[in-house]
Amino acid sequence: MPEPTTITSPANPRVKALAALRRRRTRDEQGRTLVEGHEELDLALRAGVVPETLYVCPELMGDRARSSDVVDRAARLGAEVVRLSRPAFEKAAYREGPDGFLAVVPTVDRRCADLDLPDDPLVLVCQSVEKPGNLGAMLRTADAAGVSAVVAADPVTDWRNPNTVRASKGTVFAVPVASDGTATTLAWLRAHGIPLVAATPDTRTEHTQVDWTGPVAVAVGTEKEGLTRELLDAADHRVRIPMVGRADSLNVSTSAAILLYEAVRQRRGRAGS
Amino acid sequence: MPEPTTITSPANPRVKALAALRRRRTRDEQGRTLVEGHEELDLALRAGVVPETLYVCPELMGDRARSSDVVDRAARLGAEVVRLSRPAFEKAAYREGPDGFLAVVPTVDRRCADLDLPDDPLVLVCQSVEKPGNLGAMLRTADAAGVSAVVAADPVTDWRNPNTVRASKGTVFAVPVASDGTATTLAWLRAHGIPLVAATPDTRTEHTQVDWTGPVAVAVGTEKEGLTRELLDAADHRVRIPMVGRADSLNVSTSAAILLYEAVRQRRGRAGS
Repeated sequence: MPEPTTITSPANPRVKALAALRRRRTRDEQGRTLVEGHEELDLALRAGVVPETLYVCPELMGDRARSSDVVDRAARLGAEVVRLSRPAFEKAAYREGPDGFLAVVPTVDRRCADLDLPDDPLVLVCQSVEKPGNLGAMLRTADAAGVSAVVAADPVTDWRNPNTVRASKGTVFAVPVASDGTATTLAWLRAHGIPLVAATPDTRTEHTQVDWTGPVAVAVGTEKEGLTRELLDAADHRVRIPMVGRADSLNVSTSAAILLYEAVRQRRGRAGS
Repeated sequence: MPEPTTITSPANPRVKALAALRRRRTRDEQGRTLVEGHEELDLALRAGVVPETLYVCPELMGDRARSSDVVDRAARLGAEVVRLSRPAFEKAAYREGPDGFLAVVPTVDRRCADLDLPDDPLVLVCQSVEKPGNLGAMLRTADAAGVSAVVAADPVTDWRNPNTVRASKGTVFAVPVASDGTATTLAWLRAHGIPLVAATPDTRTEHTQVDWTGPVAVAVGTEKEGLTRELLDAADHRVRIPMVGRADSLNVSTSAAILLYEAVRQRRGRAGS
């Protein structure tokens, strides 16, 4: 491997281009996002991401990171490796206490119509969820539960948001994701014959009382407002998670996990019978 | 209500005493913690907390907060209301972008032996969990699931940590919590005839394959290391949550939610049959 390019000035155009990727518009225009941090990059590589460029700052790396093979793996995949001075890296980095690893990776923001679905798909629809941490947490659960696709309906936060990428622990690159309008998402589900289960406190049907064994999509809404009337009216089932404490106790990503794992339980039971 | 006391200097001893409550040692010595923020205080009051003192900074309050009755409710419960100047409040506040509400509240850090348990208790044991956000999230789920008690075994983060209080959305005041050594916790469970279910990836038994309908405790471990050998060896059942994605996909608080809601499902099924 040749000696990497080294950039020392924070005013270098490539450093400015990195900082610009913190803006959603730039990410959308370029179809790229940032993966920052050794652990996150390691997970992204394991999930199959091929970075375009890996920016490193040896001065900021700890011993553990320096002994890792992340740089070699990225280089073998064809990533250009660029060294940054500490001031340049700190300008480009988006989180506090950067550890010297920052990669530019391509992302594909699909529409629902572009998703390939298996037989009996299990789909998670997140309507207008705001917090990148919640979106990322739901992707981790979706990955674990074997969800076929996660759709952001009328997204407020985009899948390319670096904080979503980070909170997802790399699973945003492993689980098929899409973004679309709510009406388009609903039409797509109907066209594919996928019944929709909407999570809402305003029903007496509990989430364990519906059949999750066939093709099914489950929708969760914003932390504050829940799902829209449009989506609730279109749902085939409305279910609630039983709660004995205060009504707003469950976080949206916790609710999604409970619902998806009820689906997993029923689907595994079917497979085993 | 008389006009509240007003403190203008950030060097005032009461302001310094507030800042000192950010230290765990001070919290433990005094049996007190801080609840900051309008929403958090509102939830804590609803959960039955009686603040000793409520510090307010009208200059920092938005319109919504100013129109609320949180100050009146706290005052009616006997809380002393103290006005702080903006510099004094910002010195006392522990979070960025303070909203002008900060209360000092008493906390009880029980030992296991001090917990009152119902018949057929459902107990959550969190061993050495580090992140206050995860502890707080588990409290919210425990509240929703009707958990009888949450025990921090060999705690790294304390129940009085203001970030735990915040992430719990006030449920830390509604759910009985205790802290104890792992050995003491295990002895306490045995003495009460409560079987222990340990969550670990190193087993073939799935969490849906054990009986959660009687008295039962479920233990979850640290984000990185999981449960200790001591606890795993003492467990009556070891269970895993089935995962089809990468092995480390589930966050500890997500895992706790999936386990607790399997218990809820089985227990409600029993009640309904």
